[in-house]
Amino acid sequence: MLLRNNIPLSYIFGKIKKEIFFVTAYSLGIVVLYQNFHVTRISIPLAVPALLGTIISLLLAFRSNQAYDRWWEARILWGAIVNDSRTLARQIVSLVDNPYALPEVENFQKRFIRRQIAWCNALSQQLRGFSAHKGLERYLDKNEMAFIKNQRNVTVALLELHAMDLKRALNEGWLNKYQQIEIDKTLTALCNHMGGSERIKNTVFPVTYSKYINMSIHLFIVLLPFGLIEYFGYMEVPLVIAIATFFLLVEKMAVHLQDPFENKPTDTPTTTICRTIEKDLCQMIDDQKLYEDMPQVEKASIGSYYIL
Amino acid sequence: MLLRNNIPLSYIFGKIKKEIFFVTAYSLGIVVLYQNFHVTRISIPLAVPALLGTIISLLLAFRSNQAYDRWWEARILWGAIVNDSRTLARQIVSLVDNPYALPEVENFQKRFIRRQIAWCNALSQQLRGFSAHKGLERYLDKNEMAFIKNQRNVTVALLELHAMDLKRALNEGWLNKYQQIEIDKTLTALCNHMGGSERIKNTVFPVTYSKYINMSIHLFIVLLPFGLIEYFGYMEVPLVIAIATFFLLVEKMAVHLQDPFENKPTDTPTTTICRTIEKDLCQMIDDQKLYEDMPQVEKASIGSYYIL
Amino acid sequence: MLLRNNIPLSYIFGKIKKEIFFVTAYSLGIVVLYQNFHVTRISIPLAVPALLGTIISLLLAFRSNQAYDRWWEARILWGAIVNDSRTLARQIVSLVDNPYALPEVENFQKRFIRRQIAWCNALSQQLRGFSAHKGLERYLDKNEMAFIKNQRNVTVALLELHAMDLKRALNEGWLNKYQQIEIDKTLTALCNHMGGSERIKNTVFPVTYSKYINMSIHLFIVLLPFGLIEYFGYMEVPLVIAIATFFLLVEKMAVHLQDPFENKPTDTPTTTICRTIEKDLCQMIDDQKLYEDMPQVEKASIGSYYIL
Amino acid sequence: MLLRNNIPLSYIFGKIKKEIFFVTAYSLGIVVLYQNFHVTRISIPLAVPALLGTIISLLLAFRSNQAYDRWWEARILWGAIVNDSRTLARQIVSLVDNPYALPEVENFQKRFIRRQIAWCNALSQQLRGFSAHKGLERYLDKNEMAFIKNQRNVTVALLELHAMDLKRALNEGWLNKYQQIEIDKTLTALCNHMGGSERIKNTVFPVTYSKYINMSIHLFIVLLPFGLIEYFGYMEVPLVIAIATFFLLVEKMAVHLQDPFENKPTDTPTTTICRTIEKDLCQMIDDQKLYEDMPQVEKASIGSYYIL
Amino acid sequence: MLLRNNIPLSYIFGKIKKEIFFVTAYSLGIVVLYQNFHVTRISIPLAVPALLGTIISLLLAFRSNQAYDRWWEARILWGAIVNDSRTLARQIVSLVDNPYALPEVENFQKRFIRRQIAWCNALSQQLRGFSAHKGLERYLDKNEMAFIKNQRNVTVALLELHAMDLKRALNEGWLNKYQQIEIDKTLTALCNHMGGSERIKNTVFPVTYSKYINMSIHLFIVLLPFGLIEYFGYMEVPLVIAIATFFLLVEKMAVHLQDPFENKPTDTPTTTICRTIEKDLCQMIDDQKLYEDMPQVEKASIGSYYIL
Repeated sequence: MLLRNNIPLSYIFGKIKKEIFFVTAYSLGIVVLYQNFHVTRISIPLAVPALLGTIISLLLAFRSNQAYDRWWEARILWGAIVNDSRTLARQIVSLVDNPYALPEVENFQKRFIRRQIAWCNALSQQLRGFSAHKGLERYLDKNEMAFIKNQRNVTVALLELHAMDLKRALNEGWLNKYQQIEIDKTLTALCNHMGGSERIKNTVFPVTYSKYINMSIHLFIVLLPFGLIEYFGYMEVPLVIAIATFFLLVEKMAVHLQDPFENKPTDTPTTTICRTIEKDLCQMIDDQKLYEDMPQVEKASIGSYYIL
Repeated sequence: MLLRNNIPLSYIFGKIKKEIFFVTAYSLGIVVLYQNFHVTRISIPLAVPALLGTIISLLLAFRSNQAYDRWWEARILWGAIVNDSRTLARQIVSLVDNPYALPEVENFQKRFIRRQIAWCNALSQQLRGFSAHKGLERYLDKNEMAFIKNQRNVTVALLELHAMDLKRALNEGWLNKYQQIEIDKTLTALCNHMGGSERIKNTVFPVTYSKYINMSIHLFIVLLPFGLIEYFGYMEVPLVIAIATFFLLVEKMAVHLQDPFENKPTDTPTTTICRTIEKDLCQMIDDQKLYEDMPQVEKASIGSYYIL
Repeated sequence: MLLRNNIPLSYIFGKIKKEIFFVTAYSLGIVVLYQNFHVTRISIPLAVPALLGTIISLLLAFRSNQAYDRWWEARILWGAIVNDSRTLARQIVSLVDNPYALPEVENFQKRFIRRQIAWCNALSQQLRGFSAHKGLERYLDKNEMAFIKNQRNVTVALLELHAMDLKRALNEGWLNKYQQIEIDKTLTALCNHMGGSERIKNTVFPVTYSKYINMSIHLFIVLLPFGLIEYFGYMEVPLVIAIATFFLLVEKMAVHLQDPFENKPTDTPTTTICRTIEKDLCQMIDDQKLYEDMPQVEKASIGSYYIL
Repeated sequence: MLLRNNIPLSYIFGKIKKEIFFVTAYSLGIVVLYQNFHVTRISIPLAVPALLGTIISLLLAFRSNQAYDRWWEARILWGAIVNDSRTLARQIVSLVDNPYALPEVENFQKRFIRRQIAWCNALSQQLRGFSAHKGLERYLDKNEMAFIKNQRNVTVALLELHAMDLKRALNEGWLNKYQQIEIDKTLTALCNHMGGSERIKNTVFPVTYSKYINMSIHLFIVLLPFGLIEYFGYMEVPLVIAIATFFLLVEKMAVHLQDPFENKPTDTPTTTICRTIEKDLCQMIDDQKLYEDMPQVEKASIGSYYIL
Repeated sequence: MLLRNNIPLSYIFGKIKKEIFFVTAYSLGIVVLYQNFHVTRISIPLAVPALLGTIISLLLAFRSNQAYDRWWEARILWGAIVNDSRTLARQIVSLVDNPYALPEVENFQKRFIRRQIAWCNALSQQLRGFSAHKGLERYLDKNEMAFIKNQRNVTVALLELHAMDLKRALNEGWLNKYQQIEIDKTLTALCNHMGGSERIKNTVFPVTYSKYINMSIHLFIVLLPFGLIEYFGYMEVPLVIAIATFFLLVEKMAVHLQDPFENKPTDTPTTTICRTIEKDLCQMIDDQKLYEDMPQVEKASIGSYYIL
């Protein structure tokens, strides 16, 4: 989850504490060796690490780009879930015909829209590796809870309930044939966004690619002090640390961005998005109570996820 | 907002005044130290800043690209809002059937199209962080104003009003079943563009990425004078300033482009786009008065936003 | 407009005549200073311009890419206008039912398809900054001309006429309800392509970005002779000219590609595309006369736009 | 197929064993020549391999990007097959009307959904170059098996069976006209994903491109020891090995990613995806037996494909 | 057309025979001058060609990328033609109702599907610059041949025939109103793919861009020997040849990829794709005779196009 707060330096370096420690020790060791014991032959031309650095930064730039694309695609998918949830609710409210204001039909509409909120929450939890059932009793009634209890895939089951309700509405005459098809299209869109999120969740970014780049960065850091020592002496230490930190952080960031549903601070903020959906959908069914009842516990836990 | 005027140099450098000042002082200090006090040992091989410069410019190029993509996507979304507003108006004018030219139906059409103009303006203001209600009384009648007054999300509420009006038109026989569905699809498209704009507005560009690049640029600038001083002497000062300015400006530009709804000169010109929509939609309902009544105040404030 | 002819060298260099002249004078001046007056201290290490050159070429490559994307998107949009014009004509010919071969219906079909040719021409002229009305009397009848005469936005008005004609066809029974909706979708597609073209036309490529790159290229050219002079002597002049020309030309090309509707040789060939549409649509309504009557004047003026 | 396990070093180097062996022998030979026989004239400036290295890594980065895009597109297509299989099943379950719970209709639904599982498996096998018929008898009944037996293209035939069943359902009154069209659209989507997979399978990545890059990497490796030997002596051997390994591995990875249906560990995991589809579709028709009967043999063979 | 065969070295170098010859002569000449006549002053620092090389390879990488994108888009369009041809055939087979198995309706279906094969072949020939009429008599009957004979644009005319046949089927009661619209959508998709192919065919890749890169590569090759001669002596000749070959080949490949319908070996394999369509569509109408009758002449001529 990405917020716009100021980033404490401690956080930035916290991620790569261990690496920084080793880099410091290593570069200090080399400079001591060079200056105090006069092992001057270990100096190498800067062009060697420079060549490596250019190559690595090139591949790192592409890799960051691909990681960023995954992260952004995940965000687009959840943006589309917001859009299609609103569309679904709008269609349920405006297409379902209820000229005599029958409470039965109104209940049907409210239940449908609440179930959509449940679906979003279930998907969010499922993607983060939690039980999809947890907390759904706020939105679903007993029959629905019973139905999904024994299903392997809860989100697919909820979409099926949506679809069966549409069939019932057609048979009762609350919807006409075209309206059923139109709302079914919105279900298809939701099904696609769900599948897209699962795809990103389940497909590993080519492991060996990351591995090779990681190994090359380490090779680069190992060579760097030898290239700088002749000109910088003790000043080489902070310089090596600065350059190594930069590479390690950019790489770490790519690693974090590439998996946007892993319950990490850099995740797609699915919980917050579900909350937005709940706000808008509750407005449409005039059910402020449902929205405001929300226990605030969860938010606290979000608060601690404040940075990329 | 981007216009094609000549850019005064003062504006370009105004953005990074403070940084330029420090860079000047810093590089002057170093050259004075080097030339007058003969601390010649501080010269370092140019290859060190060159390595850093290449790496940074590579990552900066990718970052500018991603920022540009966000900005262009925002522009595409608002272009699509123009298109779908025109389509919506065309459909309301051409699909709604009014063989006996009933004033009731004509009012329905005009109210619908005015409400679309209101929706665009409300979205524009909401994205820029202003109250979505402001100024909507030009386009909406009393009932509509009363309806949206207590809604948390005004744009969602206006789309709901659109949809409820379509239901009424179907029940009155002004639209047939297919036409209702077709116009509902246009509402869905508008809902998607709204969600897309909100997504760009609410999703922060990975903060640490920007931070790392920013820090590296500063490191690069700190090292640059040491690399140039041996060959350039006092000429090093303007050169360092020129190169530092270039990096700082390209970075600043990326920072501006990546958030296109922040009420800054580089924003997507939503106010101007809303005005274009108003012009075209008023033409369709032959309501020149509404279009020409527009107070010109707002435009003045736009005038001062003249550059990227 | 891009054609595949051989490019005369004079054209290529014509674009940057002035710059080339200054570069020649400048680099000659420096070599004379260096060789004849022995101001040898001005030689600088090649690494300085090399660093600048690498950075600039990186950003230039990204910028060319973005300019190319704008140009290619414009071309895609006009390709889609061809496709949807053909689709519209096919639908008007094949969906409108005319079992008794009534001349009234035939006229309706022909008028509709001619109006589509008019729409393409009007859009082409509007994008290039000309009056959208000019020359439309070839395709439109008197009533249509009268209708569009006082409209601010001619292309929007023509689409509205299309839509009103569809309503009439539905009421007359020439189209059924599904067919009306289907053809309306084609109008929506055309409306989107129109909006897309206007978006590219009206959105300036980030001005400061171009400006910074342009300034850096000049800085690079200023430094280049100092870096080369030591090794090349008088040979430095042609080399500087060659390298400077390359950078200036690539930059110039990006500037041209990024604005594809500016009435320049590199434009999207909207006039030629309109002509293709006219050919195909006239074939469908068997109206060779309209197509062949075309005055050839316009073509001549195209002929002079022969290169990118 | 990509899993997130730890990668044993032996696997990584296993892929390029032969190349590594030659590189070792070659660089050892050179250092022996240089150190023991004092053929010192063979040392060349590092800038030569550095230039080559930069150019190659640039082209390699683009090539990896294109290979990655192919691989990711293949994954998107199979993600879409999951989505549309679920959508198809949901539509068959919820759109087909069966008010009297006739077993005939229920059989129709189950047969349809089972046939969809068969289609996924057939496509998976066909893409990997196996017989598309194998194992389909688990999902298809005798008539269906007989029908596909003599068809050249099994997946196209299965889609045709789907479509013929829809026609029958329309004629029997189990589906209405709109529902038939809507389900037919889902078939069209599946047909597109199938075609997209075949396109990636059948279109070779430009061979000469790979070839040129491969040849340049070898040229680079041949030159590298000569550039390093002066500064590193015997240390040159591990350095050359490390750099050569990096280039060879990145290139190998690109070669593997670009062909995602070749029955290799880096393939799109079509077998696992088919299994997921089977799980979800069996849930919808309450047929746990079909799902759990699955012989576990196949999984074992998957287990051995554990890395990219 | 791209196949996976082994590439003979002679083919690779055949493309740039002339250039290689000049490069060899040129670099030999220089080394002879340098070694035998001791014109040692011509040696220049390697950094000059290195700078040029880096810049060129950067722009070349982007250019290859754009050329690859054009080529891949062409392939995607023809993949979509396969998909939509199959979809069209499936719809004609499964939507057209023929409860009494009237031969008239069966003929209608067969004629329609054969005409689709004809359309693909006509488009393929038209794109390659051949007459679109050639060989269509295998698939079309006399009336159809007579109709297209005098049309300027054969593929547009065939789509019109498709559409007129759909109208007839609607009037005869073989299709219902929704089915007509649905099949018409498939025609629209085919029309879009056709237009996309024509767009790629008719839009020249920015000529001056290619020209500038080509000129810079030559400048680079001219400078290269002077930079290498000091260190390599006679060994400079093979090195210059290798590096020049690499640049020339990558550039040549980009030139070939960017125009995928020029009747060259690197073309989109439209003939093979048409054959695949024919196989699948003949299977659907059980007309093996049509498929197997195919004269094998054409294939032979394909066989000689075996590489990129």
